Amino acid sequence: MIIIGAGATGMAIATSLTRHSHHSITIFSTDRHTAYSQCGMPFAIGGQIDSLDSLVLREPKTFRDMGIDLRLETRVDSIDIEQKTVTSAGEKYPYDKLVIATGSSPIIPPIPGTSLENVLTLRTLSDAKRIEKALENTSNVVIIGGGSIGAEMAAATSQRNVDTTLINRSTSILSHNLDPDMADIVHEHLSSLGVKVITGYAPGSINGEKEVNSVTIASSEFPADLVILSTGVSPENKLASDAGIDIGETGGIIVDNYLQPSVNGMICKDIYCGGECVEVHDTITGKAMLSQVASTARRMAGIITNNLTSVSTEFGPILNPWVAVIGELQVGTTGITSKKAMENDIKIVTGLATGSTRADYYPGGKQLFIKLIFSEQYLVGAQVVGGEGVKERIDALTLAINKKTTVEELANIETCYAPPVSMLIDPVSFAAKGALKKMSKRRS
Amino acid sequence: MIIIGAGATGMAIATSLTRHSHHSITIFSTDRHTAYSQCGMPFAIGGQIDSLDSLVLREPKTFRDMGIDLRLETRVDSIDIEQKTVTSAGEKYPYDKLVIATGSSPIIPPIPGTSLENVLTLRTLSDAKRIEKALENTSNVVIIGGGSIGAEMAAATSQRNVDTTLINRSTSILSHNLDPDMADIVHEHLSSLGVKVITGYAPGSINGEKEVNSVTIASSEFPADLVILSTGVSPENKLASDAGIDIGETGGIIVDNYLQPSVNGMICKDIYCGGECVEVHDTITGKAMLSQVASTARRMAGIITNNLTSVSTEFGPILNPWVAVIGELQVGTTGITSKKAMENDIKIVTGLATGSTRADYYPGGKQLFIKLIFSEQYLVGAQVVGGEGVKERIDALTLAINKKTTVEELANIETCYAPPVSMLIDPVSFAAKGALKKMSKRRS
Repeated sequence: MIIIGAGATGMAIATSLTRHSHHSITIFSTDRHTAYSQCGMPFAIGGQIDSLDSLVLREPKTFRDMGIDLRLETRVDSIDIEQKTVTSAGEKYPYDKLVIATGSSPIIPPIPGTSLENVLTLRTLSDAKRIEKALENTSNVVIIGGGSIGAEMAAATSQRNVDTTLINRSTSILSHNLDPDMADIVHEHLSSLGVKVITGYAPGSINGEKEVNSVTIASSEFPADLVILSTGVSPENKLASDAGIDIGETGGIIVDNYLQPSVNGMICKDIYCGGECVEVHDTITGKAMLSQVASTARRMAGIITNNLTSVSTEFGPILNPWVAVIGELQVGTTGITSKKAMENDIKIVTGLATGSTRADYYPGGKQLFIKLIFSEQYLVGAQVVGGEGVKERIDALTLAINKKTTVEELANIETCYAPPVSMLIDPVSFAAKGALKKMSKRRS
Repeated sequence: MIIIGAGATGMAIATSLTRHSHHSITIFSTDRHTAYSQCGMPFAIGGQIDSLDSLVLREPKTFRDMGIDLRLETRVDSIDIEQKTVTSAGEKYPYDKLVIATGSSPIIPPIPGTSLENVLTLRTLSDAKRIEKALENTSNVVIIGGGSIGAEMAAATSQRNVDTTLINRSTSILSHNLDPDMADIVHEHLSSLGVKVITGYAPGSINGEKEVNSVTIASSEFPADLVILSTGVSPENKLASDAGIDIGETGGIIVDNYLQPSVNGMICKDIYCGGECVEVHDTITGKAMLSQVASTARRMAGIITNNLTSVSTEFGPILNPWVAVIGELQVGTTGITSKKAMENDIKIVTGLATGSTRADYYPGGKQLFIKLIFSEQYLVGAQVVGGEGVKERIDALTLAINKKTTVEELANIETCYAPPVSMLIDPVSFAAKGALKKMSKRRS
């Protein structure tokens, strides 16, 4: 079998298959490296992890020793679904089963100057190494795009004492993940780290001769020895699309519940697609969407492995729970935001609470900010920002949404307590009580 | 109205009522202090909190300024349900509504020597102060009883460099909360802190002239300047029982869903009971039980406040989620243990996993041990031991049990990921996958 893409999805499938069966596996990847943690890159650049090289979890040799034919820096030029072959460097490779896990690639904003030297994106380990090298001689960095990567990178470069400017086109950062009130907490935290956060503006141009030297934003010029473009990614669908595979409105490959693509609506029975190149569906709205979190990719890899080893498993719609660590803050979200609710004409009631991760008198407690979003009594979204305990609460609230938990149930939720690890009542309960109070007022 | 007991339940109700209505409130308590955190006492003794006094959250004056007639060190001698009065020091006090929140008191084991000096229990702040004072001249402490308080206190005294022996009658510590395999992790941790943990033995006698000087265990004599008895508590039901109120098989006051007691099965309409003196029911087994966690008391206080302010609210059966912090370990449980399943003839399948709280390459990750207990595909119990992230996972798993979550759902659970706060897949999912594998094997 052939796997196109040596990212989280492709490598997880390959590794599992070597344990399960006797497939001969060939993997093609345009990347120079494999089996490294993309999500860890901002933390290696920020200095929390000692080097980018420690993000490499397994060397190519390890995979080759497992009998996997791993071809790095090798582009697949086309897929022939009829013939069941892929072509690379003029040579045809037959497959019995094919996995397309091509991931996604950075969007380059349509402004002048993006091809100047030291205007970089962060996607691959090579990208991260380029940024790392550029930072050695950087006094001023301008990061364009205040999403997950942009915000994590702004924290990272400011921690390296590089003068950091973060520009975000929307009026609040992390606008795909957080409502403005929750994003403001992160914005303030970035400011406290010394990051200049500019919202509501897109850069006009990136300027310089050969190398970048400034960025123009709303007719002001900001000095920059390094510009990081983090204005989102789009699914790498070209190979699939050229082969006739159906592409969705989001740009992701359309797949069925078994993660199999189609050509003109007809399922391609020997092909599976997984990871960021695939179009998924939102549990709450039912709409097509893209997921750009490694945990989704990893879950898809599990499903594809099962289906390749004849344990038929389905991949359902997702809430796409997400967490990021931005400086000292952990920031998470699950389900829909208020903005997404509005776009989808979903009437919501929100509940907010602040709390702490320890009893008041116990030293070291960290603040927690919780926002819950309900529709028709049911939890449909949640956002948590705080110093610790965020990822676990997002996971709990993801389960709560999936299991159709009501506002009353969350208001009266049973939680455990010990002074070094919690308040007597978890703040999630207070947020639900807040929403409940609003609902009662509206009814009366 | 009158409240008997100035613990977590009584004071929460009194405080809420002053906000909600114009009740005149009299509170009687035998305790010298009020509004302090009992759960915090082991940590003040261990030195994590600077002093026992910082556990006092509010001074009596604060309550008196709210208009509450707070009578500390004042015993109620009887309740007359017909007359709607309570008697204290020969005087009768009429009530319109009565709340019984008398809590529970330590069980003194039936062995010689328990009334010697420096043989102490830990229940009230005065108890804690006595222990604190005794520790000033203690070289050797013997703690009898390896439950929650015993284990937390053993960690505390060993952290003060006092030679500490913990004796536990069962063959594994924390046997109400943890299966032996999970308890072993805590046992080892206590040993690593220097605690001598002796399981499977009850002490024969506590020895000394006026003050304790040793404890005899299995014909060996262990030196002791201080003995802490932590062999459990029993509900303070005497006042209620003497007044004719129905007491359950557990020793707790029988209440209906609105937390109202009965006399010969007839509900006492002007009386509510809450906190540890009340008999509750187990969600999984349906059986009567006692809950000795502050979070249950606090939830009951909320229900009673609602019912007193005419917002009718019911208190259902509980999973009694529990967390303790023992040295560097956090230890939690929810639902039933394997032992409780066996006692109730519930067939179970368990799933175990170990994991970490961070990505492998991210410094500072702490180990996590997870045990899930399933019955007929549904989660019915969970135990988590680890360095962090325990309380939140216990809360999530409590919700999972209450919302009837299946092993398949937990195996494929959507969780979020960032290297500084999690593994790519949460270990809860691996524990569920382990159970699922066992189930498939049994079926095939």
